[in-house]
Amino acid sequence: MELIRRGAEEILVEDDLLKRLEESYKKKKPLKVKTGFDPTAPDIHMGHTVLIEKMRHFQELGHEVIFLIGDFTGLIGDPSGKSETRPPLTREDVARNAETYREQIFKILDPERTRIEFNSRWMMKMRADDFIRLTSRYTVARMLERDDFKKRYAMQAPISIHEFMYPLVQGYDSVALEADVELGGTDQKFNLLVGRELQKEYGQRPQSLVMMPLLEGLDGVKKMSKSLGNYIGISEPPEEIFGKIMSVSDELMIRYYELLSHISMDEFHALGKGLKSGAFHPRQAKEDLALELVARYWGEDGAARAKAHFEQVFKKKGLPDEIQVHAFTWAGEASVPIAALLKDAGLCQSASEARRLIKQGGVRLDSEKLSDPELRLKRGEYLFQVGKRKFMKVVPKG
Amino acid sequence: MELIRRGAEEILVEDDLLKRLEESYKKKKPLKVKTGFDPTAPDIHMGHTVLIEKMRHFQELGHEVIFLIGDFTGLIGDPSGKSETRPPLTREDVARNAETYREQIFKILDPERTRIEFNSRWMMKMRADDFIRLTSRYTVARMLERDDFKKRYAMQAPISIHEFMYPLVQGYDSVALEADVELGGTDQKFNLLVGRELQKEYGQRPQSLVMMPLLEGLDGVKKMSKSLGNYIGISEPPEEIFGKIMSVSDELMIRYYELLSHISMDEFHALGKGLKSGAFHPRQAKEDLALELVARYWGEDGAARAKAHFEQVFKKKGLPDEIQVHAFTWAGEASVPIAALLKDAGLCQSASEARRLIKQGGVRLDSEKLSDPELRLKRGEYLFQVGKRKFMKVVPKG
Repeated sequence: MELIRRGAEEILVEDDLLKRLEESYKKKKPLKVKTGFDPTAPDIHMGHTVLIEKMRHFQELGHEVIFLIGDFTGLIGDPSGKSETRPPLTREDVARNAETYREQIFKILDPERTRIEFNSRWMMKMRADDFIRLTSRYTVARMLERDDFKKRYAMQAPISIHEFMYPLVQGYDSVALEADVELGGTDQKFNLLVGRELQKEYGQRPQSLVMMPLLEGLDGVKKMSKSLGNYIGISEPPEEIFGKIMSVSDELMIRYYELLSHISMDEFHALGKGLKSGAFHPRQAKEDLALELVARYWGEDGAARAKAHFEQVFKKKGLPDEIQVHAFTWAGEASVPIAALLKDAGLCQSASEARRLIKQGGVRLDSEKLSDPELRLKRGEYLFQVGKRKFMKVVPKG
Repeated sequence: MELIRRGAEEILVEDDLLKRLEESYKKKKPLKVKTGFDPTAPDIHMGHTVLIEKMRHFQELGHEVIFLIGDFTGLIGDPSGKSETRPPLTREDVARNAETYREQIFKILDPERTRIEFNSRWMMKMRADDFIRLTSRYTVARMLERDDFKKRYAMQAPISIHEFMYPLVQGYDSVALEADVELGGTDQKFNLLVGRELQKEYGQRPQSLVMMPLLEGLDGVKKMSKSLGNYIGISEPPEEIFGKIMSVSDELMIRYYELLSHISMDEFHALGKGLKSGAFHPRQAKEDLALELVARYWGEDGAARAKAHFEQVFKKKGLPDEIQVHAFTWAGEASVPIAALLKDAGLCQSASEARRLIKQGGVRLDSEKLSDPELRLKRGEYLFQVGKRKFMKVVPKG
């Protein structure tokens, strides 16, 4: 149970899940653990792997994990035609995306003990009348309690009726699979609960839910996502993955250890203590994590190569092993004068000193020598070097 | 157009319907006129025939009328299981009910030019994914504008999501039939409009709507309905139909003439003038109407028999040709003392006079002599006779 609880944000209902695990152990009958994935986004990043790692935990405990590709919804697309960016997928798209998923997830999961399912298998057989019976199991008011629906309804933004159908489809998948457990992100809570409700309506024991947090991206604040650019893709080159992990804050490193690393809970606790007492150096911990994660996706060779590359670049750039990080508050999206930023970071005594140093060619930004003392910088991450030895990484605050 | 307009409460959009009729006439291509009927209630009363008479008008003008039995919904029943009184129909039920409809409606419509359809023909072929596409054509907010949904949502009474599906099914029927016109009661306006919307979404010209009023029942106030007991069933014995029509108020008679009689518009206007000037006696007009309607469902013989029966009963009971009607307000469902009622109806000067007359055996209720002066009467219709010549029919007000 400690392994299942690891990193989980919420378990619903924990007592019931415990009972289920005990029963499964006694009867030697593995639990069916469902996790749903979007058929349109097969290029997964570390944020997605949080769920896959949790699947792996269940797999380690001997349960049956079901990697469910929700292709039925994808095959329909957005029939209202309102979002032109979501054309329906073809069967070929789905098959191709599934193949990509397969390549990626089997770096974490045991292929022998992973069941890949597509909900089109049962949904495409369903007729309109059966579907209407399904829709009778849920009320309009409860559907409108879902956060995004509630907001849009209150703002009088249109909600197409078919949008009500998708949580029901997702919930019905649990009925079709007779799922014992469903894993999902905390943002999926509403849909996961629909699964419980529908299972009750169809005379099944409602599934237990294990909800995982949304992994923070490299900035340590916002959730990891492709569109925010703060992600580590698992298909990125080893050097990229290595470098990105080396760049995260110490706090975020701990979080990544908890959610992504395969070290045991004992090792995890020991790491925490070691870092606190100073017996273990954060830089070393980051390197270990980077090595572990790169090795998972690129093998030991890849990891070694990435490490060598990282060290070489740092030496070449004359960067020290560790660089202090300074968090700076950008007001809104406005840019700020570089001189103010340097002063705030403590790299200069005053803004005028900063301007003078820039004019003298004594300030480098991301290894490039600066010349314009009036330069303004937008919100972002910057590596400054003032003189020969003063280094500072500036990251946005909040 | 005058015939189509006869009795109609609202035509939407009238200009467009006119254009359609002209085009149809020019191209010699009949319009498809859809009217939907409930598959569960084949025992129709005069309230239902208002629509069927309007179908007949279109038929007279050479158009194709489609009597659509909405059996798809009936076959599903109430899947939420909340109303135990609505079990799903079987295919056999539907066939039997359709047979009953056939017998009844062909007393009004020309069987040769009437198409009977069942929406299960296309809806039972529809798959869940096509159905979801259908649901994408309408928004939650617009659906919640429907009166009953709006009220229930405001009162926090549950609305099952499948209830949103039925207006969509009804609307889609117009798409499947490529209806040019749909007839319906004014209470169906929302659903009829959904048909227009969906036809637009599916690239069809939106149907014109002819909305008929809900026929008032015998009380002249509430809509005719079986549950209110104020109806004339078209399968009732001739004597019953005849007697019920003779009992209606003069105003209601005019209404029934407009909506149920086959007399021409010219005759109808002449009747109105004649009644106003006193050239035509209301009693005679009622008898003519009763004869016409009984003859429609029971033939001329039946009509003659019913008339003879009616006259005989009245003579036997010593009832006058015409009896005044007094509307009395029952507060809630409480019963009232008969003495108070008689006084209110103006049959006695005071309640104590009423009690005295009852004790003396001078008051009859529905031809039965009364003896209990403290009798209380619940809401209902009563025929009083006080002494030999004073008659009064008391009906509930409102």
